[in-house]
This record gives sequence, C-alpha cells and structure tokens, in this order.
Amino acid sequence: MRDTFVGGEERQDSENRSLNAVVAAASALEVFHAAALVHDDVIDKSDTRRGAPSAHRRFEALHEHRGWAGDAEAYGVSAALLLGDLLLGWSDELLDEGLQLILQPGHRTAARLEFNRMRTEVTAGQYLDILDEHAWNTFGEAELFGRAERVIIYKSAKYSVESPLLIGATLAGADRDQLQSLSEFGLPLGIAYQLRDDLLGVYGDAKVTGKPSGDDLREGKRTVLIALARRELTPGTRRLFDELLGDPDLTDEQISMLQHTIKASGAVDQIEQMIKANVSRAREAIERSDLAPTARTQLSELARTVTRRDS
Amino acid sequence: MRDTFVGGEERQDSENRSLNAVVAAASALEVFHAAALVHDDVIDKSDTRRGAPSAHRRFEALHEHRGWAGDAEAYGVSAALLLGDLLLGWSDELLDEGLQLILQPGHRTAARLEFNRMRTEVTAGQYLDILDEHAWNTFGEAELFGRAERVIIYKSAKYSVESPLLIGATLAGADRDQLQSLSEFGLPLGIAYQLRDDLLGVYGDAKVTGKPSGDDLREGKRTVLIALARRELTPGTRRLFDELLGDPDLTDEQISMLQHTIKASGAVDQIEQMIKANVSRAREAIERSDLAPTARTQLSELARTVTRRDS
Repeated sequence: MRDTFVGGEERQDSENRSLNAVVAAASALEVFHAAALVHDDVIDKSDTRRGAPSAHRRFEALHEHRGWAGDAEAYGVSAALLLGDLLLGWSDELLDEGLQLILQPGHRTAARLEFNRMRTEVTAGQYLDILDEHAWNTFGEAELFGRAERVIIYKSAKYSVESPLLIGATLAGADRDQLQSLSEFGLPLGIAYQLRDDLLGVYGDAKVTGKPSGDDLREGKRTVLIALARRELTPGTRRLFDELLGDPDLTDEQISMLQHTIKASGAVDQIEQMIKANVSRAREAIERSDLAPTARTQLSELARTVTRRDS
Repeated sequence: MRDTFVGGEERQDSENRSLNAVVAAASALEVFHAAALVHDDVIDKSDTRRGAPSAHRRFEALHEHRGWAGDAEAYGVSAALLLGDLLLGWSDELLDEGLQLILQPGHRTAARLEFNRMRTEVTAGQYLDILDEHAWNTFGEAELFGRAERVIIYKSAKYSVESPLLIGATLAGADRDQLQSLSEFGLPLGIAYQLRDDLLGVYGDAKVTGKPSGDDLREGKRTVLIALARRELTPGTRRLFDELLGDPDLTDEQISMLQHTIKASGAVDQIEQMIKANVSRAREAIERSDLAPTARTQLSELARTVTRRDS
C-alpha cells in the first residue's frame, strides 16, 4: 500500500513539475517577445502596439504630462530601450526557473540551446530586415526576392513557430525524428504566417490589427510581397513605387494607390498561393510524422489558426 | 604510485576547470558590459567611446559610405540597439558555459543569482539616471543629493565593483562572512570610483578619457557633484546653471564657465573628501576580513588603481 501511494504521489509530482516547466518556458518566450516588440517599436518608430500606445510613446507621454525637463521623445526611446533590456534578462531567468524543474540534464541542455539559438537568430533576422530596408537600392534585382525570403525565415518562421515547438519538444525529451517532423511542420507554417502578416501590413484593417493600415508601406518594409510586385512593374512605375515606399508621410491616397499597384501586379494572388503551398507542406509533415495523435490534432488546429487570422 | 598520479591529474583538472569557469564568467561580464555601453551610447547620444566612434555612429557611417536609402542616423540607432541585444544574449551563454564547469550546484546557483541581480540592478540604475536627468525639476531640492547617490549605488558601485567580486567569490564557494567583507569593500570602492568618474566627466582630458571634455555637462547628468554644487549657489546663479546644464550645444566658453562655477562652490573638494572617506572604508573592510592574504593584497591593489585612474 505504502509503495503504491508513494508511487502515485511521485507520478503526480513529476507531472506537476513538467507542467510547471512548460508554463515557465512559455512565460520566458512571452517575456522575450515583449522585449523584442518594445525594441522593434523603437526601431520602426511605431506609435501603437496591440491597439494601445507603444512603450516608448507611453514613456514620452509620461514625460509630457509630468512637465519634466529636456526632450520627451528621447526620454521615451531611452526608457523603452532599458525596458526591453530588463525584459530580456527576466525572460532568461524565467527559462532557468523552468529548466530547473526538468530532471534530465540532457533535456535541460537541449531546450536551453534551442532557446539561445532562437534568441540569436531572431536578432540577426531583425538586423537583416533593417539592412534590406535601407540597402535594397544597392542589391541586384535578382537578389531581392531571396533576401526577403531569408528575412522571413529568421525573423518569423523560426522565431514564431519552429523554435517554440522545438523548445517545448526538447523539454519533453523528443527524439531526433520528432524534432525533425516539428521543424518540417513549423518552418513552412511560420513562412505562411509571415506572408499573411505581410498582406495584413499592407491591406489590414487598423481596427482589427491594432496598427494603422498600410503601416508597412510607410516603414518601407522590403517584404516578399513587395519583391514580387516590383518584378512585374515597368521601370518607370517601379521608380515611382520605390520613391513612395518608406516615406513616413505618405497620404491615404498614396497608400491606396500603392495598395492598388501591388494588387494589380498579381503579387497578392501569388502570396495567397505561397501561403496555401506552405500550409500544405506543414500539414503533410504532420501526417507522415510519428507524433502522438493528440499532438497531431493540436498542430493541425495551430495550422488552421495561424493562417486564417486577420490580426 | 598510480593513485598519486591520478590524484595529481585530478587536482590539475579541477584547477583548470575553476580557471576556465572564472575566465568564462569574466568574459560574460565583459560582453554584458559591451552591451550596456552600446545601449548607453544610444541613450546618451555619444559620438565616441574609448576614443573611437560609438557603435551607432559606426553603423551610421556605414550607411553613409555605402549610399543606402533612408535615414542613416535611424539606421545607426536601430543596428546598435540590435547589436546590444545580441551581446546581452551572448553574455548569458558565456556565463552558462562557465557555470557548467563548476561541480558544486550550490556555487553555480549562487553565482547565477548574483549575475541576474547585477543585470536587473544596473538596468534599473540606468533608468533612475535618465529619470533624474529629466525629472529633477519636479523634485524638492532636499531630495536631489539622495537621488544622485542612489543612482551611483545601482548604476556603478554595485555593478562595477561589488557584483563582479561577489560573482567571482560565489563561483569559488565563498562563505557568508567572506561575501559580507567583499560587499563592505566593493560598495564604498565603487562609490569612490563613480565619484572620480563624475569629476572626469566634467574636468577630464579628452585625450585621456576618450570622451569630449565636459561631456556630462552637455548631457545634463545630475550627478552627486552637481547636487553638491547647486546647494551652494544663489537662486539666480542656480537658475542660470540649470538652464545651461543639459544643453547639447554648449560652447567651450560655457563649459569652462560651468567648470569654474562648480569648482568655486567647493563641490570638487567635497567630492575629493568623499572619495578619500569611501576608499578608507573599503580598505578597513579588507583589513578586518578573514580573506586570504593574496586576495587582500589584490584587493588593496584594486583600491589603489580604481581611485587613482585618470581615464
């Protein structure tokens, strides 16, 4: 009797530990993401995030309301920069709290390495994004699509879908085949996710996305959508297109004109086809995987949610 | 014979591990510091660091030389922000590499907690610094000295001296008394270090410090030195003083006038006395400690170097 009881308690304890580890790791990702968004909004000079003022704008408003001395905008940026740094540190601590609950050192190490890789890759991806946004005019036309695709992979596909899946899976001690299946599922799904996001950045409804419509056009983001559209333009139209793209003071009429030009080029239809193809690849990866039936169901559900979203 | 040989090899191995752990932890601190400086230079809009262009200025220059599109200055700031983030992640990985070499889990955990505390405290200290730089005009006169002192403690004394000592000591399994002695040594020494730095920020030789002379005056840093000087000024002079302080376009003549006003207030002499008193406190802490003789000698040497520096 005693042994059975203790065994039950231990099993319960082990399940609680695993659950708490996953919650801590998920919290670490959430806090890391908050840090990335706070810094990203500084980089993109975004006024809003999730329909509310961005962090640097909040600090700037605090400065203005309190009647402090000096430059309110500079204060906002500095405070947001430090807030992001603080969040980066905390995300790390949260992950360690989770890892401490994992009894197998090998699982702990694998999850930590995956987290570290994600952290480095998304930061490098962000840098490639701003690099392409500024240096596109010095690249050959043939390079632009490939570069935009590379940004999508590092900044989004790995970061938003593949890495979180791999971190969760390594925590649970997934084997090499399972990790391989999750990569083959996560990477194309993440690409589809970002392609949808690029469409929303140009055509999204501000009320739903929480960001002004056409925001990506004012920022001059060199997305796959833009690369595809530019290919189809005549040299004259392309020159005008390039001049407008990235102008922070674009009028609503100019935004509307750019939206029509992109659509008329056929790029939107091409992106929709790419989304479809990538989601199919992701689904096929689940189907031929040896993942547990509940996991397969949840991943299918994730594929559905990610690509049908409108915000 | 065999046993002695293996024992010797094991001792050698253990010493190598400890040495490698300390080198990795020191590298982690150095890389963390690089991240902090890269972000700090963005916050302070500093053009130079250690006599060379600051990171954001380097990226800005790259943008200009390559003839890229868009705003070169914004590109510089964005790239430096991401560079700092990347370095923060790497410092963390370096620390973990070092901790993995430490065989005692208790020492590992203690060193990690100390590192985490340092990371949070210095970021909070940096925020208090920029807060005071902007909000000083809404605080009571009586508060200003205490606030400047608090910034020194979190931004500098703990970060530059106390925490690195505690991280090293916890790695080696120091006991509570030893840690206490190191805190009692490190905190006043760190205060002395920053007070010297504040003097250099106003009176330092650009050729030696690698930063323009009077840089802190253009930035409007609300240091202990400034708080002491303001106390002694007549209301009229103080008003003029406050108007000039923090003006990025101060002329050399205005800098020189501010330098004289601060000196004439007696604040420089007061700071020199505070430095002396803090160094004495630090030395007394070593003398009454039960640290090893070699450690005591090295700490005395550190106390000498830190406070006699001119850059």
